[in-house]
Amino acid sequence: MTGSAAIIGGGVIGGGWAARFLLNGWDVRVFDPDPEAERKIGEVLDNARRALPGLSDAPLPGEGRLSFHDDVADAVAGADWIQESVPERLEVKHATFAAIQAACGEAAIIGSSTSGFKPSDLQQGAARPGQIVVTHPFNPVYLLPLIELVTTDANRPEMIETARTTLKALGLFPLHVRKEIDAHIADRFLEAVWREALWLVRDGIATTEEIDEAIRMGFGLRWAQMGLFETYRVAGGEAGMRHFMAQFGPCLSSPWTRLMDVPEFTDELVDLITEQSDAQSGAHSIRDLERIRDTNLVGMMRALKQQDWGAGAVLNAHDATLRTGGALAARIDDLERIDRPIPTLARAVPLDWTDYNGHMTESRYLEAFACATDRFMELIGCDSAYISDPEGGSYFTAETHIRHLSEVHAGTRIRIETQLLLGQGRKLHLFHRMSAGDTLLATGEHFLLHVSLATRRPAPPSAAIAAALARLTEAQADLPWPEGAGAAIRRPA
Amino acid sequence: MTGSAAIIGGGVIGGGWAARFLLNGWDVRVFDPDPEAERKIGEVLDNARRALPGLSDAPLPGEGRLSFHDDVADAVAGADWIQESVPERLEVKHATFAAIQAACGEAAIIGSSTSGFKPSDLQQGAARPGQIVVTHPFNPVYLLPLIELVTTDANRPEMIETARTTLKALGLFPLHVRKEIDAHIADRFLEAVWREALWLVRDGIATTEEIDEAIRMGFGLRWAQMGLFETYRVAGGEAGMRHFMAQFGPCLSSPWTRLMDVPEFTDELVDLITEQSDAQSGAHSIRDLERIRDTNLVGMMRALKQQDWGAGAVLNAHDATLRTGGALAARIDDLERIDRPIPTLARAVPLDWTDYNGHMTESRYLEAFACATDRFMELIGCDSAYISDPEGGSYFTAETHIRHLSEVHAGTRIRIETQLLLGQGRKLHLFHRMSAGDTLLATGEHFLLHVSLATRRPAPPSAAIAAALARLTEAQADLPWPEGAGAAIRRPA
Repeated sequence: MTGSAAIIGGGVIGGGWAARFLLNGWDVRVFDPDPEAERKIGEVLDNARRALPGLSDAPLPGEGRLSFHDDVADAVAGADWIQESVPERLEVKHATFAAIQAACGEAAIIGSSTSGFKPSDLQQGAARPGQIVVTHPFNPVYLLPLIELVTTDANRPEMIETARTTLKALGLFPLHVRKEIDAHIADRFLEAVWREALWLVRDGIATTEEIDEAIRMGFGLRWAQMGLFETYRVAGGEAGMRHFMAQFGPCLSSPWTRLMDVPEFTDELVDLITEQSDAQSGAHSIRDLERIRDTNLVGMMRALKQQDWGAGAVLNAHDATLRTGGALAARIDDLERIDRPIPTLARAVPLDWTDYNGHMTESRYLEAFACATDRFMELIGCDSAYISDPEGGSYFTAETHIRHLSEVHAGTRIRIETQLLLGQGRKLHLFHRMSAGDTLLATGEHFLLHVSLATRRPAPPSAAIAAALARLTEAQADLPWPEGAGAAIRRPA
Repeated sequence: MTGSAAIIGGGVIGGGWAARFLLNGWDVRVFDPDPEAERKIGEVLDNARRALPGLSDAPLPGEGRLSFHDDVADAVAGADWIQESVPERLEVKHATFAAIQAACGEAAIIGSSTSGFKPSDLQQGAARPGQIVVTHPFNPVYLLPLIELVTTDANRPEMIETARTTLKALGLFPLHVRKEIDAHIADRFLEAVWREALWLVRDGIATTEEIDEAIRMGFGLRWAQMGLFETYRVAGGEAGMRHFMAQFGPCLSSPWTRLMDVPEFTDELVDLITEQSDAQSGAHSIRDLERIRDTNLVGMMRALKQQDWGAGAVLNAHDATLRTGGALAARIDDLERIDRPIPTLARAVPLDWTDYNGHMTESRYLEAFACATDRFMELIGCDSAYISDPEGGSYFTAETHIRHLSEVHAGTRIRIETQLLLGQGRKLHLFHRMSAGDTLLATGEHFLLHVSLATRRPAPPSAAIAAALARLTEAQADLPWPEGAGAAIRRPA
């Protein structure tokens, strides 16, 4: 699902939206009066191209077209989605919506990136209030899945459903806030912590660095994967949530916090925080910090992806859509041709597959080959249903021979084609070629044995798998024996 | 650095401390009047043994001895560290300290796990106030690095330094809170968010599940690696922290939050939260949730480790200590014997190396072999200094042949021994054997070429490396040629 998106306001947030749409195949039309807008969005796009495509284990669609426009009317013409990310002042928002609605289609969705205003505030005085919703994202918008989708009774249910579907198709996690409230949900927590942190710095209890350590070395790690309540549920032990509350509820009346008061935002406090932040993070430029942050986020989100949990589950669901959206063949018989090596992997090299030089790490070549083997197995009918069937089985790798021929960097689109060398009885002998463009990066020769999962011993596969392998053997019989296959490690002269 | 630790109070927190000490080689002596204490601590230890050893890329020392004691005096006898984790009531804490100090040595450090009390509160009326500090941990204590170390003027600087050193040797990150305050630092933030969350649930704005999603899909991921201020510094862009504050400071006067008031903790509110939490997480038992949490944390922390950032940097520093603590040889000439295959890897299989069946994933065998190759290179002088020298070079893998012989689970201690097959000119031919106990798990045969990093082309290594390889070649000349080496992939009958 792609279309045309208008980005009204192109700062860090608008740029992040632009990247999210563009890299998911949408055309993006930007309006921002800032003469620097094109450069700024280009920088966000550079970051996004480095981090987002490899976050997915499926290939993203080709990038859409990016264009810059001199006025709002031009930008929103023909747009399916219009994302407003202008400064956080209500009169500016209202003027922007007026300009947008004077020119856009009535079916377009207008999402606002506002962090503070309620949708009913934004809809006031609009030509078509029902066209406007809050879609509040989190920086970096091209990586973090959360979108607070806040609506009012003016928004029709079908329009809300379209908004949800569209956001999901961008790999986002729309959280529908059913009851509008200033600052929605997440920013209320951020505000609470921000106020308490200002007190701690002002009163000399802790520096900005100490506060950050107190967060990221402890509960920050917990919250990245379970949030507040589920974490406390686990802490309560077998007795669960009720026990936890019985134990910690009374703290509410203790004099623990300064929350009942708000610190005065003086120049001295601003100076103090700026100085401490410079001491803490000044060794890195903002550009460096952005890339460090993105690499950390990609690594952590891909770790969660392996567990199909939280943000990782969102990524997996998005991959599944990308795969079916690309009409991925279920079986070899659905393929157009099987008389040549079969495409078994197409993806971008993710950031967490690379070393400090930016090259793909040795063992990740095998990870890619193993994914290609899994895909090959799926195509011959050895899929997850077969593997989980008590009567079923699986192919276990016995031997692997990899030749590294060329290096590759994060973000590069790689693909693997697989030739069947032998598929008979319990034996499966595959030859994978990994390429980027016309460059052969590596070859992987794999010998596998079919194993009964009941006995954990070698056994023939199902008749259906044997038949699929027989068809493939016949179709690929005339392919030349691959250079390097069946060879021992050579010692070149 | 190991010793004897007394654990006074063995719930989730005390059990976590017990696991942290025990798995780092300390003897642990537990006192807890609960007749279920031994079972409960056993369950925490099961979790810890599954998750902690593999978090490290170096082998942990052997586990210490665990014993249970009927009274405090017996438990603290001879202890170097005494960790108090009894219920959060000041009179209980005072009575416990009196019993401890009546029996323990004067040089022992008494750390309190209190989340709320200041150290000066705890020290009141103590026989030796200067012996007591706050060492506030975060659940799960065996994984999360943060310890808030809070002291008073009664604690001598040398004693505080010993406490810091001891905590670091356990792989922890002691954050020294210089100015004592109720609830220290982190729990003040948790309290602020907890209060705001109670309002949101009570007012029907969001359910517990929606609140958790609002955290873990967005800012939770940011906070796990950068905390609050560094995240905002990046959000401020090139203009930095001052710009960010100019933009967001004014929100402090907005009517965003209910922070100025505290929700009444009624039975209805407790029921509401309990029901919502059951609906959200009830499909998983607490045991399941603990394991899901631990697997997530291990994966995320190991992702940060790869970037040497935040909690990951703490893990790397701890590994370095474990390695030098184990007096790791710098060069082959420091090894006792080089006429047999050389130990190049010893570690536990980490959780993130295993698949949904709990078996080590195919590509992680190559990851382990690649680590063994790196260690071999270090031993012959191709270390990080040589690689970063403009005149230096490195060995690049050209070919790999892996044979998978047996399966292995998370937590298993594996080791690799490496035989030199050829080390001459640009060529390096290695044969790795991976074992667990007496079981051969896999072999890895690797052919590498030395490459000049200036030209990126094959070139001979330095004279020192060539000489080290020559000595090793001579010493290993009589070793039998390994079974399976130099062979092509066979197709067994």
